Order: sequence, then structure tokens, then C-alpha cells
Amino acid sequence: MTGDVLSLNQATIKKADLREAVRVCAEVGFGGIGLWRDRVAEVGTAEAARIVRAAGLTATSLCRGGFFTSTDADERAAALADNRAAIDETAALGAGTLVLVAGGLPSGGRDLPAARRAVREALDALAPYAQARGVRLAIEPLHPMFCADRAVVSTLRQALDLAEPFPPEVVGVCVDTYHVWWDPDLDAQIARANGRIACLQLADWSLPLCADPLLSRGHLGTGYIQLAEIAAAAYGPGGYRGATEVEIFRQDVWDAPARDTARRVYESLTEICVRARAPVTIR
Amino acid sequence: MTGDVLSLNQATIKKADLREAVRVCAEVGFGGIGLWRDRVAEVGTAEAARIVRAAGLTATSLCRGGFFTSTDADERAAALADNRAAIDETAALGAGTLVLVAGGLPSGGRDLPAARRAVREALDALAPYAQARGVRLAIEPLHPMFCADRAVVSTLRQALDLAEPFPPEVVGVCVDTYHVWWDPDLDAQIARANGRIACLQLADWSLPLCADPLLSRGHLGTGYIQLAEIAAAAYGPGGYRGATEVEIFRQDVWDAPARDTARRVYESLTEICVRARAPVTIR
Repeated sequence: MTGDVLSLNQATIKKADLREAVRVCAEVGFGGIGLWRDRVAEVGTAEAARIVRAAGLTATSLCRGGFFTSTDADERAAALADNRAAIDETAALGAGTLVLVAGGLPSGGRDLPAARRAVREALDALAPYAQARGVRLAIEPLHPMFCADRAVVSTLRQALDLAEPFPPEVVGVCVDTYHVWWDPDLDAQIARANGRIACLQLADWSLPLCADPLLSRGHLGTGYIQLAEIAAAAYGPGGYRGATEVEIFRQDVWDAPARDTARRVYESLTEICVRARAPVTIR
Repeated sequence: MTGDVLSLNQATIKKADLREAVRVCAEVGFGGIGLWRDRVAEVGTAEAARIVRAAGLTATSLCRGGFFTSTDADERAAALADNRAAIDETAALGAGTLVLVAGGLPSGGRDLPAARRAVREALDALAPYAQARGVRLAIEPLHPMFCADRAVVSTLRQALDLAEPFPPEVVGVCVDTYHVWWDPDLDAQIARANGRIACLQLADWSLPLCADPLLSRGHLGTGYIQLAEIAAAAYGPGGYRGATEVEIFRQDVWDAPARDTARRVYESLTEICVRARAPVTIR
């Protein structure tokens, strides 16, 4: 399962296919890689698992399931079926954790409380399926600027409230610094999370925002987030012991050579983990 | 002071000077106008007060004070002096409420807790001055996407925490739907606010975000926010009894004729207030 490694989420080197992404990660020194379903599907799940293992890497998460908020019964059933497939893939990859993005307001809708209830209902439906396959679901709060169109789960508190009815090894949360750094409640909720953090992802908040704010994530150290402080809080006593993953969506990062990006991430991540005294293995 | 009226924040018709904005508001049927310091300064505070009164309008708020987060001692002293001037202007205008925007991270800084402490210190310094002049300070939480560059106060809970040490008639909060609509904690915090809401501002959340997200605010009903539901919560038992103000920053709204914009706002706001059973005077 998820190890105590430095990990590169493959979406950071989006143009590389799975084979190339794995090779670059291993060469640069990462111990882990965060996988995406589309790139896994290109080679097939079994072959993807073999490629990752053969390179000596750990799959630290799979992105992503979720998108639970449709008000159409057929679409909701299709979303659950797709999430079950994603759970199967997570198990087959040995990735341990499936990251869940809740979904935004359903088309034309404004009923935020109803959309949030739909997320809870989907978790009720999926948690037993995940538990039976040894897969942990990680609810990811997304930045509130994505509430309308992408994720009605907006804060770590809310994600933990959603996770609370389930055993911690079945439903956890994904803490992504880009999404939660601003939250005045962050320290308290990280302390509360104790054992519920299933995935820790780092990216910086850069300004100005890009035209598509989804692609505004910056290289570590180029923005406004106290990344080492947040990592230190997550890795505090009784806290998270898994991988630190870097996930940057940004056009100019994608346009750079994959190995250059991976090396820059590795160096900046190492520095942050040292400052955070994170219990991760740095090669 | 602030009355139970429909009000247009003059920044919604940004190209109009104070005299024109007041004329348009009165003609369209608004009972109030939210004022901005730069437009007031063009005619002088006493003359601005006379113009608003002569038109039979109420000044429902003054925008804005704040910007407390510099780490430079001189800049902080200058900010406090400017806020005292803004308090004096608020009193002279009979606007009752001065809206405060906290300020973002200081230049080059990442220390969010320190920036938030600076806001508390500024309130300590300003509250007695405001109280002596019968002016209410309204801490406005801004959307978390503005945390780095504009306001380190990001949630209504946080604004209420900051206001709590002071008498409710001295330090309240400004609830602006554009900034807080996404918050899973919103209903609970509005209920908690009981008597602390000093200003209620409406704007819709439109997508896609504009290149400058500050200018993404949409006409009421064009976006994703349950505006009537939020207004109804604010005006609930024991709750807010003041004006409802509409504040839209958006280039195409500014480019439209001021009277067309004001009329459209008046109609959409009336509909929302009726749906919300808001205790405001609709002419």
C-alpha cells in the first residue's frame, strides 16, 4: 500500500504516458507515483501494476472517483458503477487509496445542500464495496472556487464530517495544500483528522490566477503557502505516515520536459520534507 | 442609520459619479445607496451627505476600510490613520457601517497566522474610535480565492470570531453572498451571527470566472447561489433588520447604461426579497 515515500502525481508530467512517467520518477529518485485512470487504462491495469512494481516504485494513490451529484437517476447509477470500477483498479494497482472529487452543482441547479447529501449517499453505497477490496476512499475537499462546477466538498472539516461514520481505514480524506491552505480552521481539522488522512498532496498557490483556475497550481516555493508547516502538521504525533505527493496542473509545467519538471519537484519537495521533519524516505 | 431598504452599492454602476449614482438610485426606486470613499471624496463628505439626503436616500454602508496586514510599522500606522479617516467619513455620511476588507498576505510573505493576528490588533486599535463616533465596523470575509492578495479573513466563522470580543453595535460582519455562499458552515454561522450582521450584500456566482476573479460577480439570478435562501436566513428570527445591498463588479455590467443596470438590479432584488420574506421596504 501507500508507503512513506516522496511521490510525483503523474498529472504533473501530463504529457508522459504511464511507462515514461514511471521511468522518469524512478530515475529522478521518487519512491512513489500517483496514478491517473486514463493513463492506466492505456496499458491496462495489470500491466500498469507490473510497470510500477518493476521500476521499484509504489503507487501512492489513484485519481479519481467521485462526481456523485447528478440529479438524474441513470447518471447517478452510472457514476456509482464507474466508482466501483475505480475501486477495483485501485485494488489491482496496489495503490491503496482512491481519491474522490465530489462533483459540483448538477446542471442548472442551485441546491447545494441536496448536492452535498448526494455525496453522503454515494459514500454509503460505495464504502462496503471499497472495504471488501481493501481500498481506502479519500474524500478531497476542493478549493471553494470550484464549488459550483467541480466539488461541493469545500473544507477539510466537511470532508471529515462525511468520513466520520465510516472506519478510518475505509473512508479517509485527501489533504491538498492548494485547496485548503487558506482555511482558518485547517490546523484544528488536521489535528482532528488523526488517522483519517489518506493522501497528502502539495502544490503552491501562485498569482495571478490562470484563466482556468484549475491550472493555477504552482511549483513548490513559488507561491503563498506555508507548505512545510502544513506538512509538519499532517505528519505530527499520531498523524499521517504515508507518502507526500506533488500534483501540479499548469500549462507551462506541462510544456516543460518531464524529467526537468520531475527533478525540480524532487528537489523542492525534499527541502520541504526536511524542513517539516516528515517521516518520509528520501533516497 | 442603515434602514430596512433596498440599496444599490454604487460600485455596481461604477462609471457614474456620486451625483449621478444617487439620481439613478432614487429614480429607479431604491431607498438606499452603498457608498465608496473615492466617489465621496470627489464632492467632499458633507456635500455627499447632503446629496444623498436631498434625494431621500439612506446611505447604507461605506466601502471601505481595512488593509491591516502590512509588516511595516509605518505602513501599519498609515493604515490605521486612513481607517480613522474612513470612520469619520462614515459618521459624517450617516452611513452607520464601515465595511472592512482585511488585506492579504504582506508582500513576499507567507505567514498567514501573523497576518490574521494583525487584523485582530487593528480592530483593537480602531474599535474604541469607531464606538466614540457611533460607527459600526463590519468585517467582511472575502472568498478564499482572495486570501493571498486581498483578505486573510475568509469565512463568516472567522469574521465572527474576530468580532466577538467587541459589542455587537461596534464590530459586526458583512455577509456578501459572492464570498460566503459555498461555505458548509454558513447556515450555522448566520444563526450564530444573531445581531452581528451589519451589512448584507448580494451578488451571484457566475461561471466561467473572469480573468480577474474580482470582476466575476454576476447579476442576481444568473449564477449558482441560492440568494433568497441566504437572505431569508440572514433576516430570520432575531436576525438582521437592515438594508439589502447589491454589489456587482463586472466589466460588462459597468459598460451598460447605469439606469439599465440599476433597474435590472431593482427588479431582481425585489423578487429575491419577496421570496425571502425579507422585512425590507419595497416601494
